[in-house]
Amino acid sequence: MSSPVLPESLFRTLPARVTIYEVGPRDGLQNEQRMVPTADKIAMINGLSRTGLTHIEITSFVNPKWIPQLSDASDVARGIERREGVHYSCLVPNRRGMDAAVQAGMRDVAVFLSASETHNKKNVNKTIDETLAAFAEVVGPAREQGVRVRAYVSTVYGCPYEGAVDVARVEDLVHKLRALGVYQISLGDTIGVATPAQVDHVLRRLLAFCPQEELALHFHDTRGTALANILVGVALGITTVDSALGGLGGCPYAPGASGNAATEDVVYMLHGMGIDTGLNLDALVDISQRVAAWVGHELPSKFFKARLGERLRQGH
Amino acid sequence: MSSPVLPESLFRTLPARVTIYEVGPRDGLQNEQRMVPTADKIAMINGLSRTGLTHIEITSFVNPKWIPQLSDASDVARGIERREGVHYSCLVPNRRGMDAAVQAGMRDVAVFLSASETHNKKNVNKTIDETLAAFAEVVGPAREQGVRVRAYVSTVYGCPYEGAVDVARVEDLVHKLRALGVYQISLGDTIGVATPAQVDHVLRRLLAFCPQEELALHFHDTRGTALANILVGVALGITTVDSALGGLGGCPYAPGASGNAATEDVVYMLHGMGIDTGLNLDALVDISQRVAAWVGHELPSKFFKARLGERLRQGH
Repeated sequence: MSSPVLPESLFRTLPARVTIYEVGPRDGLQNEQRMVPTADKIAMINGLSRTGLTHIEITSFVNPKWIPQLSDASDVARGIERREGVHYSCLVPNRRGMDAAVQAGMRDVAVFLSASETHNKKNVNKTIDETLAAFAEVVGPAREQGVRVRAYVSTVYGCPYEGAVDVARVEDLVHKLRALGVYQISLGDTIGVATPAQVDHVLRRLLAFCPQEELALHFHDTRGTALANILVGVALGITTVDSALGGLGGCPYAPGASGNAATEDVVYMLHGMGIDTGLNLDALVDISQRVAAWVGHELPSKFFKARLGERLRQGH
Repeated sequence: MSSPVLPESLFRTLPARVTIYEVGPRDGLQNEQRMVPTADKIAMINGLSRTGLTHIEITSFVNPKWIPQLSDASDVARGIERREGVHYSCLVPNRRGMDAAVQAGMRDVAVFLSASETHNKKNVNKTIDETLAAFAEVVGPAREQGVRVRAYVSTVYGCPYEGAVDVARVEDLVHKLRALGVYQISLGDTIGVATPAQVDHVLRRLLAFCPQEELALHFHDTRGTALANILVGVALGITTVDSALGGLGGCPYAPGASGNAATEDVVYMLHGMGIDTGLNLDALVDISQRVAAWVGHELPSKFFKARLGERLRQGH
């Protein structure tokens, strides 16, 4: 039998460096049932600042009525050390949130909306058009003060209420958000349904008009596909990956199950492919070990568990 | 900025169908601390036979001294229903094991060795050459009786004792095993260290002389990369994937952490990319739910947890 004709390797065009955008203190902790004390959050963020991370999302300036876990946003923002070379960011739902964030010393903020009307309505109680109009009141004033604005688009790959999401809606949002002046758009697989061929399809549509550095990958690992999806995005040249320490961010209905892509696992995969992240994996594991105790449950990160096992066997 | 030049999509050449080779009853249960009663194993295998699986590895005819969990190999092999269209296989370490397996009704057996000398020595107490010599006493006689023989190569992507494994050693073993007459070679990432670029590199080397259908992918998810690695192999045209129900097979040092790639997660990813497996995901989840109770711990499969959560919320 003759040898098969193989497709071109993805791995000849991998980027040399990928930026990990750590969302554990925000996207992770906001989904935890147990409230983590403010001092512990600050210790976590200060620890993360020493792992080599350059982007850490620390909290959300939303109404504490909606996310009580993050009601200490101002205290966290004022309490952390600000290490040179590290960008500390937070979510802001509107102008008031942005002003509060800036007053607390934030220089990087992020706005958020959904690609599906029903999810957006349930999440922020506005239509998508109303949400975009509200963004205009945030992005311009922020940029005038030299504050950078990122945007999150949720439910890019599927909506818990509407099911499939038309790529054309995502394209339209990316156009509008870029026109508003956000510096980067993070494409969220909020419910963790994406599979690699879909990611390839969606990203190619967006990369037809949007440079890679203006997009970020944001996958939840609800069904185990996050790393495979990230592989596809990185192979397409996207160099920002959102992830959460330990895989924090699990759904309260299925503890330990469905968090964000785990920072340790993403970094292990990238380093294994010769992609630099600037991160120290053992330093991340040290922090995960403490955070697991605070949140009161096992963390989903596989690398974290494997390294803990190795440490146990080596007796430290 | 002009739009980037992207690499060719992997997803235009995906195979239409992939065969899942279920190893949960063997590779999964042999690593469990709790002994599963023979009747439960038989119920598990009979259940798996109704999910659409065509290949199920049911046990191992090794010395019970080494793997007490599978000391009931003959009883399992004799006790199961043999459903038409399903291949039931087992591991055999030598001629004696093969004879016992055939006497118990087995028509598919598998031999095993490691790509690294130290791991092979620790695992089977022979050198690799001695192991290959012993295979010759199994494969020929098996084939004369119409029994198919598969081979497992462990530590293809890394060895816990020797570290990196030279691809040339794997190439050499694949040549020798094909010459012996095995019908397929399963390439094991025994300790779950592989990353996608390495998988791409190793498989391209082997596919330069070996047809895709003679190779199988066998990844452990110790560091979270199993699905990304499987994606690479499937995109290279390999159409047999080993996996274990629920992700069974975790290391006793880190419960729930490091099993085989989970059948449910692999199937979810493949179906999401339009690849047929013939499997019914909900039927798999039903069996995982029972097996989780037998082994006494949570199963690592993410899809399994997500589907359980959905069922809970829907009240059944």
